[in-house]
Amino acid sequence: MPKRRTLSVALIGTKFMGRAHSNAWRQAPHFFDLPADIRMAAICGRDRAATRRAAKTLGWEKPMHDWRTIMVDPDIDIVDICTPNDSHAEIAIAAARAGKAILCEKPLARNVAEARRMVEAVKRARVANMLCHNYRRVPAIVLAKQMIDAGELGDRIYHFRARYAQDWIADENFPLVWRLQSKVAGSGALGDIGAHVIDLARFLVGEISRIAAVSETFVKRRLTKNRRAARVDVDDAVSVIGKFRNGAMLNLEATRFARGRRNQLSFEINGSGGSLVFDLEKMNRLRFYNASDSGHARGFRDIIVTESTHPYVANWWPPGHLLGYEHSFVHTIADFVVAVVAHKRIRPDFADGLKTQQILDAIQRARSLPKL
Amino acid sequence: MPKRRTLSVALIGTKFMGRAHSNAWRQAPHFFDLPADIRMAAICGRDRAATRRAAKTLGWEKPMHDWRTIMVDPDIDIVDICTPNDSHAEIAIAAARAGKAILCEKPLARNVAEARRMVEAVKRARVANMLCHNYRRVPAIVLAKQMIDAGELGDRIYHFRARYAQDWIADENFPLVWRLQSKVAGSGALGDIGAHVIDLARFLVGEISRIAAVSETFVKRRLTKNRRAARVDVDDAVSVIGKFRNGAMLNLEATRFARGRRNQLSFEINGSGGSLVFDLEKMNRLRFYNASDSGHARGFRDIIVTESTHPYVANWWPPGHLLGYEHSFVHTIADFVVAVVAHKRIRPDFADGLKTQQILDAIQRARSLPKL
Amino acid sequence: MPKRRTLSVALIGTKFMGRAHSNAWRQAPHFFDLPADIRMAAICGRDRAATRRAAKTLGWEKPMHDWRTIMVDPDIDIVDICTPNDSHAEIAIAAARAGKAILCEKPLARNVAEARRMVEAVKRARVANMLCHNYRRVPAIVLAKQMIDAGELGDRIYHFRARYAQDWIADENFPLVWRLQSKVAGSGALGDIGAHVIDLARFLVGEISRIAAVSETFVKRRLTKNRRAARVDVDDAVSVIGKFRNGAMLNLEATRFARGRRNQLSFEINGSGGSLVFDLEKMNRLRFYNASDSGHARGFRDIIVTESTHPYVANWWPPGHLLGYEHSFVHTIADFVVAVVAHKRIRPDFADGLKTQQILDAIQRARSLPKL
Amino acid sequence: MPKRRTLSVALIGTKFMGRAHSNAWRQAPHFFDLPADIRMAAICGRDRAATRRAAKTLGWEKPMHDWRTIMVDPDIDIVDICTPNDSHAEIAIAAARAGKAILCEKPLARNVAEARRMVEAVKRARVANMLCHNYRRVPAIVLAKQMIDAGELGDRIYHFRARYAQDWIADENFPLVWRLQSKVAGSGALGDIGAHVIDLARFLVGEISRIAAVSETFVKRRLTKNRRAARVDVDDAVSVIGKFRNGAMLNLEATRFARGRRNQLSFEINGSGGSLVFDLEKMNRLRFYNASDSGHARGFRDIIVTESTHPYVANWWPPGHLLGYEHSFVHTIADFVVAVVAHKRIRPDFADGLKTQQILDAIQRARSLPKL
Repeated sequence: MPKRRTLSVALIGTKFMGRAHSNAWRQAPHFFDLPADIRMAAICGRDRAATRRAAKTLGWEKPMHDWRTIMVDPDIDIVDICTPNDSHAEIAIAAARAGKAILCEKPLARNVAEARRMVEAVKRARVANMLCHNYRRVPAIVLAKQMIDAGELGDRIYHFRARYAQDWIADENFPLVWRLQSKVAGSGALGDIGAHVIDLARFLVGEISRIAAVSETFVKRRLTKNRRAARVDVDDAVSVIGKFRNGAMLNLEATRFARGRRNQLSFEINGSGGSLVFDLEKMNRLRFYNASDSGHARGFRDIIVTESTHPYVANWWPPGHLLGYEHSFVHTIADFVVAVVAHKRIRPDFADGLKTQQILDAIQRARSLPKL
Repeated sequence: MPKRRTLSVALIGTKFMGRAHSNAWRQAPHFFDLPADIRMAAICGRDRAATRRAAKTLGWEKPMHDWRTIMVDPDIDIVDICTPNDSHAEIAIAAARAGKAILCEKPLARNVAEARRMVEAVKRARVANMLCHNYRRVPAIVLAKQMIDAGELGDRIYHFRARYAQDWIADENFPLVWRLQSKVAGSGALGDIGAHVIDLARFLVGEISRIAAVSETFVKRRLTKNRRAARVDVDDAVSVIGKFRNGAMLNLEATRFARGRRNQLSFEINGSGGSLVFDLEKMNRLRFYNASDSGHARGFRDIIVTESTHPYVANWWPPGHLLGYEHSFVHTIADFVVAVVAHKRIRPDFADGLKTQQILDAIQRARSLPKL
Repeated sequence: MPKRRTLSVALIGTKFMGRAHSNAWRQAPHFFDLPADIRMAAICGRDRAATRRAAKTLGWEKPMHDWRTIMVDPDIDIVDICTPNDSHAEIAIAAARAGKAILCEKPLARNVAEARRMVEAVKRARVANMLCHNYRRVPAIVLAKQMIDAGELGDRIYHFRARYAQDWIADENFPLVWRLQSKVAGSGALGDIGAHVIDLARFLVGEISRIAAVSETFVKRRLTKNRRAARVDVDDAVSVIGKFRNGAMLNLEATRFARGRRNQLSFEINGSGGSLVFDLEKMNRLRFYNASDSGHARGFRDIIVTESTHPYVANWWPPGHLLGYEHSFVHTIADFVVAVVAHKRIRPDFADGLKTQQILDAIQRARSLPKL
Repeated sequence: MPKRRTLSVALIGTKFMGRAHSNAWRQAPHFFDLPADIRMAAICGRDRAATRRAAKTLGWEKPMHDWRTIMVDPDIDIVDICTPNDSHAEIAIAAARAGKAILCEKPLARNVAEARRMVEAVKRARVANMLCHNYRRVPAIVLAKQMIDAGELGDRIYHFRARYAQDWIADENFPLVWRLQSKVAGSGALGDIGAHVIDLARFLVGEISRIAAVSETFVKRRLTKNRRAARVDVDDAVSVIGKFRNGAMLNLEATRFARGRRNQLSFEINGSGGSLVFDLEKMNRLRFYNASDSGHARGFRDIIVTESTHPYVANWWPPGHLLGYEHSFVHTIADFVVAVVAHKRIRPDFADGLKTQQILDAIQRARSLPKL
């Protein structure tokens, strides 16, 4: 028997995504039969005290403060990038050059130019690379994909409409955080949550060929943490229509101004043989309309996606026991580890991220709409 | 006491809308305290036997076969137009010249040119005129309007998104009926159901200033009743983004290809202080999110719009007893009769119909989308 | 061709049920192809002015003030009883003796003794008799019955649980109306809304063999209209468990103290092959779980019961257009007229009412529960 | 600064509950600021190979095979009992005598006699003791409790109705596992899932004073794993009505024969000022009807219980990010550790378990219902 490999991981970023990824690295080995052992070697953050606390709380061997030192550490196999968007390119390119496998939080970059350099770097270095679009690994969404691929919506898809709606900045007094600054974030709702919607469109239906878009910044000035008024230079909301190469119609929205929608990523897909409906705020459910059900008993089925036959579920609890948000990261990391060990491509990868970024950029460039 | 007036009505059209309007004329006097008596004088249709049966079944004094004779009958006060779209203009203009009050089914016309002539005719003749957009008088939708006007969504509206989805022609073998012929219908899903969505956008939020649109005909050839293959020259689905004059964003869809959506007109409105959600397939409900509810107990309220304080409801049944589709027509006709007697403008009128038609035309004219 | 018969109807009662039945008598001929013409001959009420107004508003030829005169009028074929419960027996027995066909609002009587005399009277007179449990003719409930009979829930029923919940007297300051007085109403929530639940249990599952029950009067004193405090001597709520003859378990509740439940009659039926769920506040829906659906796509189907293949629906509107509360009465009266003309038994009849009354009485007699 | 204490835990049981508790012991320190360090010292199971694997997979230092050795190990501070019901009493009493803090899975015992001996043992030994009813620590259920205590349902509770419905043995061919054997399980649906419902009744409303019950075994014979037919001597379903000391009415059900209900613990509570509705299959939601909301906008609020102000939530993710089933165990263990360190009583404890057991026993003893 060959010696079982140990993969050493360094995670960069200690905030929300850092916590979510840390949990996934800890939990994956307990629920999935991974082909390697995981060593949570280091967590890296600029704030020394905070990073020291994070290492302890989140389960990492040691805190680090300069991500460049990770790249020269031969013990590190995997670099997991959970920093703000403006450092993705620099870190990922360095990691690629250092021969590390890379998991990078979405969006891949702030723009196509950055994304293209990242793709080139991982291609040249031939390192494993994955973009973390965790929602691709929500069981209900994977089930949707399986059902579409199996023809359960018929042989044609007519419509894909999706919306990612939040309301955390609908209050005008919410401060100007980094996610509202173009320099750091690249864009607003578009890159942050719109990127998820575009990724799902490509995952579930296929490549997008044409678009028109409109965006808006509803609150144009906000106070910084120092109580200074400053201009908001990213979009608050964006609305997109278009077509897929396969002829389906596209309708997407991303907004941070939908009161009551705390984290609602929803979609509906209509095919010639049926429809699927999903809502992240009810993430253990998938609704399915089967046009071939007998006429008197046709109706959207409310599938609770917790059966052992559903994707990933057998590794968790018995039927009817719900999974939560963080499980999607555990699935992502379990799949990533398998791919790293097997030297197989895993999706979405940086090339997927570039394609998404091309669409994001096209949306940002879209002309203002003609007057009626 | 002045002698109570009797209004004599002639209805043109004996199909679906003819039945719905007939029911409303019959029922309105039993549930609403109208300022005039209603005489259901005549129903007009081309098929003699069918119209004779319709007169009997639907409660009209006599069948007629040529709508022109109505115009010269001095006894007729009101003409109610329920014919296919291609005859709206001709009939309405004749009725206006004859000095009749006019209720016309939506869409007002096949295009702006027709609509404009109709508006001119009713203006010149100074006759009462109303466009029948029955959904404006669904209690839950009127409640939405009242809540918006009362500021319950805050002082700004950010988003209006609406979708009218059906699936009755999603089957490729469905025949080429008049609603799929440009010559008769003007357009497809757009004018038939999209018109409702645009009317509601204007009713609830205000005037639309900019749009981009994409449309599609998924099934390009269908069999006529004579089993001859013919081209479908109207849209199967349309998707629209845009802006309102007041700064709100617009996202509209109309489709006849959404499996499982039998007659789903749904909308969501997000304002600075809250949100409203409606779905015609649950037409007695309005969901309301109030951002000023106490933090631990905030959530969309599922309002059953059957309280005596809700619009129109006190005229029907006690709380908790649902109304159906046809009630919206009864409300329309009750309001129309009040307006006719009082010589007051009533909305939506032909001028509203023209504005809606201008938007419909702009959507039809929209360029194809640029390639990515 | 035999001469078409005209059935002359006299309705007794001008309040809520009087209005609902009047509407049904008016509407039935317009939507159903009845085997006789309907003449709405007379409406009878004690208050002269109110009854005169009711005759005009509700569409009856003449007002009457003493129901006994109806019995001696040979022109009247059908007596429709919509009075408070304490007069059902006397009126119905007189009508039977006079050879009239009888439609009587539920509950049949105040107690078994009364109910038995009523059954004997109609049997002896051999007159058509029907108890108006309108919910038996809600399309979704008839569909449930058809599906059970067709074996779509499997060959055994395990559970029937139903609840009729309202909240109109949950406010302690609500006055002591007739429905809260044992002398007039017989019982409280039990006879008023619990009777519906028992009727549905018998309709959908079969005869009940054993029960235990508990009831409560939460607000024991209320003010009469004259502002005098008086004891409430009927139940506010009742809860019942038991068994059906076929082995299924029974769980029923009726309450007027469930805040937010305005008129919620809900039930769930679990069989060996599937389940059905209904809620009157969403009366156009029936939810169906089919245990034989393929494993990955199993879930409650939300059937919108508005297809032309669904019971009664083809007589109304196209798919997706909702029906309301009053339609159930139209269906009741359409079926009753068919039965009267055909001399066929129609269910539920007075014999059904007696069986329901036997269960209501047994529930009222139930001992207080043993202490733990 | 006093030295931080380390608590060493031994868990007995390696199946479903063993996995759920193991996860909780692992996760609690990463999400909750516990007053002691946790050492996952040993997991105990009879099957040597399975327990060795479990130790590795679930994160325990060493496997053990005889729970008695735990009791004599002075290093073990906490014993966590996740075995079948028939060994709870013996193990817990031994642990109490050994001075260990005890966490025991529900139901406490097979019957009152056992439960009473367990309570006496922990009282005599003065050891920390907790019964694991994990659902008491679902955020939505804790929120319900807080709202009731704060008077948000008014000053009186009228109704508590709850139902725990599953369908995992609705298939007649499901084998005779230990949960269907009286000797091991004590009872069927009653003790397994009914116990949860009774615990919630006591937690949310108060002590129960009177009951009547009916139970049924629908499938009376099943095959053992050796393919031998044997009698099922536990209940498949039970239905209970009763009263609380505070005057509220009680209606409970537990069944394993409700097709489509995979793990549905639902309840509705009606108070004088409002109502609450919960469904475990939508465990991140709590529905709340506030009777004092303004009349036109009253309706059940669908609260997504993921705000930082909601119980336990601030320790996890931002608003709108759902929690899953296992989180309730993490909360249980976090609270238990706090109580152990602080020497404070924690609920539910063994005394609570005894009270629940007294009700379970009373339900089992209930006479058969009288015939109608």
